[in-house]
Amino acid sequence: MALRGGLDLGGTKIDAVVVNDASEIVGSARRETPRTGGPPDVVKELAAALRDAAAAAGVEPAELAGVGVGSPGEVDREAGTVARAGNLPGWADAFPLAAALGEELGTRVAVGNDVRAAVEAERVLGAGRTYRSFLGVWWGTGIGGAVVIDGRLWLGRGSAGELGHVVVRLDGAPCPCGRKGCLEAYAGRSAMERRARRAFAKGAKTDLFELMRKQKRDRLTSGVWAAALVRGDALATRLIDRAVWALGAGVGSAINLLDLEAVVIGGGLGTRFGVPGAERIAASMQPHLFVADRPPAVVVTELDDSGGALGAALLVA
Amino acid sequence: MALRGGLDLGGTKIDAVVVNDASEIVGSARRETPRTGGPPDVVKELAAALRDAAAAAGVEPAELAGVGVGSPGEVDREAGTVARAGNLPGWADAFPLAAALGEELGTRVAVGNDVRAAVEAERVLGAGRTYRSFLGVWWGTGIGGAVVIDGRLWLGRGSAGELGHVVVRLDGAPCPCGRKGCLEAYAGRSAMERRARRAFAKGAKTDLFELMRKQKRDRLTSGVWAAALVRGDALATRLIDRAVWALGAGVGSAINLLDLEAVVIGGGLGTRFGVPGAERIAASMQPHLFVADRPPAVVVTELDDSGGALGAALLVA
Repeated sequence: MALRGGLDLGGTKIDAVVVNDASEIVGSARRETPRTGGPPDVVKELAAALRDAAAAAGVEPAELAGVGVGSPGEVDREAGTVARAGNLPGWADAFPLAAALGEELGTRVAVGNDVRAAVEAERVLGAGRTYRSFLGVWWGTGIGGAVVIDGRLWLGRGSAGELGHVVVRLDGAPCPCGRKGCLEAYAGRSAMERRARRAFAKGAKTDLFELMRKQKRDRLTSGVWAAALVRGDALATRLIDRAVWALGAGVGSAINLLDLEAVVIGGGLGTRFGVPGAERIAASMQPHLFVADRPPAVVVTELDDSGGALGAALLVA
Repeated sequence: MALRGGLDLGGTKIDAVVVNDASEIVGSARRETPRTGGPPDVVKELAAALRDAAAAAGVEPAELAGVGVGSPGEVDREAGTVARAGNLPGWADAFPLAAALGEELGTRVAVGNDVRAAVEAERVLGAGRTYRSFLGVWWGTGIGGAVVIDGRLWLGRGSAGELGHVVVRLDGAPCPCGRKGCLEAYAGRSAMERRARRAFAKGAKTDLFELMRKQKRDRLTSGVWAAALVRGDALATRLIDRAVWALGAGVGSAINLLDLEAVVIGGGLGTRFGVPGAERIAASMQPHLFVADRPPAVVVTELDDSGGALGAALLVA
């Protein structure tokens, strides 16, 4: 039986799995993503995480049929390179991730886009498996997206799925991408944090940053936002409301254009807010739907934290 | 050789063609769409137009392999019905168009959505034939759309392509559909006319309505808008600029989501403004593109006025 490896490379952590032919996890591991250094340091941690998962499965990395990596940034699948991974240390130029990690592990490595890998896992194994068409909405640091059409991930000319940069308000809020009015400018955790910090600096009352310190974080993680909401923090509530308001328009627009069967919500904030969060997004989308009496199903990912790594393992299936 | 008929049912006119196996036009005719009465009156004119085109081709309607109709409103292809065709007289409830027209003509009739039929014609015979994926943007009374993916029109659950109701400005301008901030609220001719009439009533200086009377129209047709632009009319210029501004965001968002090879511009205003208009839309879209260095081709329909009827004939191919 051929075992495969999967690595989900996030800005905070690296998830590794070893799976069998049925995509069942037979070994897994987690490591922190290096916060300093450069691509070679990240490669070392990726290799270490995969070795841990392989050890848990009782195999050597070199025995695997292959290892897939779901990566942020600009991924060139053919070339096996990754460029402009803003959340990874010192990773601006294109780096030959597949080649470097393949050398470390002694097996072939394929790289793919992280959100697409996670959506592919949901399509094959998770919340998307009963639908022939759906939109994956990865609500986290940014807003990732992926479109499944006719039972297949639609890549376009290679870059389809940039839901975060759908314009929801012309000439609107500044987006981390440098443009204005993108969905991500309202609903991406990074843009939300920027706005929260500015409001806080101007004297707005909020527990967000106290909660952040208590949780020993230096960023407003999904856990920090969730804790602030539970406390009824006014600023956090307002910013999450605003994010949901924008998500309703962005997701609703995609449905008007493509009339998909379902919307699958994932990502750090998406999974943190779970079914109630998905219900809020569905309600926010409803007024924008052109065919209002037949909304798509709005569901949450089923594979949780391991979805990214499982999807990465599908890259070498 | 099997001949087929095609009818494009517009709010102003009915275009009829008879085509051969190669989709070459062997007979054509045009009639005015009835402005009063109800669906049976429209059916009579559709039948008359098709008989004219058949006569020009030297055949009887009953000899045709079938007749396709591209219709506005809510089209149910399976049932052969059309409902809520707002631009047609007395056409609110579902009417069995295929059955009624089939009885008149003595041949089988298929009905389909008008914009999709026209886009299908461009895909097979026109500006879209060299692309595997493109977005059809029908800029007219409303903003129609159609998405071609992997060489086929993507219908979703039956209603894909509602580009006009993609949200470009959350809580923005009121749309004829009753929602707010839709692309059509800014760029649809009907919404533009509404805004022009309001500005004029408030004292704005404009030649739009004088030109309308001179052209013996009671609506601001594409020809009226074009004439006003040529004169440098300030209100017309401002409203067209605003439409192009909104089109850039709506079309750009669709490209960010789907990464299509091309955008094909059609519709009354789209064909009227031609290549310069397409170039303006391309320029307006550019700042919104996530992959800015690889924009889609933006081209104009090639089949002009007969595209709708040719596409309708493809419904029975």
